Amino acid sequence: MYSRSITNLIQALKKLPSVGERTAERYVFHWLKSGRGEVNELRAALDILLTNTKSCEMCWNFADASPCPICTNPARDHSVVCAIADPQDLAAIEQTGEYHGVYHVLRGTLDPSDEDGLKQTKIRELVKRAGSKNTEIKEVILALNPDLSGETTAMFLEKQIKKFNPDVRVSRLARGLPMGSDLQYADEITLASALKNRK
Amino acid sequence: MYSRSITNLIQALKKLPSVGERTAERYVFHWLKSGRGEVNELRAALDILLTNTKSCEMCWNFADASPCPICTNPARDHSVVCAIADPQDLAAIEQTGEYHGVYHVLRGTLDPSDEDGLKQTKIRELVKRAGSKNTEIKEVILALNPDLSGETTAMFLEKQIKKFNPDVRVSRLARGLPMGSDLQYADEITLASALKNRK
Repeated sequence: MYSRSITNLIQALKKLPSVGERTAERYVFHWLKSGRGEVNELRAALDILLTNTKSCEMCWNFADASPCPICTNPARDHSVVCAIADPQDLAAIEQTGEYHGVYHVLRGTLDPSDEDGLKQTKIRELVKRAGSKNTEIKEVILALNPDLSGETTAMFLEKQIKKFNPDVRVSRLARGLPMGSDLQYADEITLASALKNRK
Repeated sequence: MYSRSITNLIQALKKLPSVGERTAERYVFHWLKSGRGEVNELRAALDILLTNTKSCEMCWNFADASPCPICTNPARDHSVVCAIADPQDLAAIEQTGEYHGVYHVLRGTLDPSDEDGLKQTKIRELVKRAGSKNTEIKEVILALNPDLSGETTAMFLEKQIKKFNPDVRVSRLARGLPMGSDLQYADEITLASALKNRK
């Protein structure tokens, strides 16, 4: 129905997470209406992204330099590593202003139904980083989503890290009622957890 | 929180319709994870779009040529013009296989609260096209959404076209119950319309 160049771009856009035919169409026609200026701005931003963004060789976060500004910051506590699934989680934790250690971006979690999943993530890199004999790491905080895949990954990491370095403390984020939530609508696991860890 | 090149791209993506901070972040990290191949494919598709896509000088649809393949097709009925707000509407009508006339893409509708709205659309171009003395157009079908902005545009167009060329027939899409809908949940205007236009 659409011209080849439009169909072409729709196909390329459909690879983005939760972008289907309709959303891709809307983006394409938005660009066609907005014209050259906005498309050129986007292309330039994509170019800069590819040229400037590096994977930090320490924590696997995406940054303009490797090692990244957090890993090279002497003011941060390099004996505490917070393991997170995605770079967005790092931003969320940094925004609390409560954490002063360093990070390890796992770039995904273990999918129990996908045996090859381990290869695409940086989970083994964390085991290596925390499990090596001369590591300065004293604590690994597993800040993963409380779902099946997050739990699987946390259990795997805890076991592996302890195996190579029994001295490292492995902790998890506290479970409890979120701020502003309603007690009567809390699920039983969260509520049980909140009761158990009362203070 | 993010590096400059990431923030940069997030800002550029937020100009897309219904893309906010979170969605833009997800797109950026998807590209960072997927790597160079997918980003280059997208950049190439954007280049091709800008180079190859033209505005059809007849119907204002986006196509690889101007006039577009529909406007130059001798098998189509050039005396009937279907006016639609967006190129996506054209695709929807073509997919029915029931329409054999030509189109006019208005590129938007009149917003009653925005007096400058007329300039960005191709509404005046349709008045000119259907209202000129030597036009071959005999009927204009106003296929606009049945909402405030669509109704305003339809009324404006009908009045203007009739003023310049009283011989042109101006029609609208039928209102009625959509296929698969439930009578008891139909709104009263739709139901009244369906009753009045029973056949």
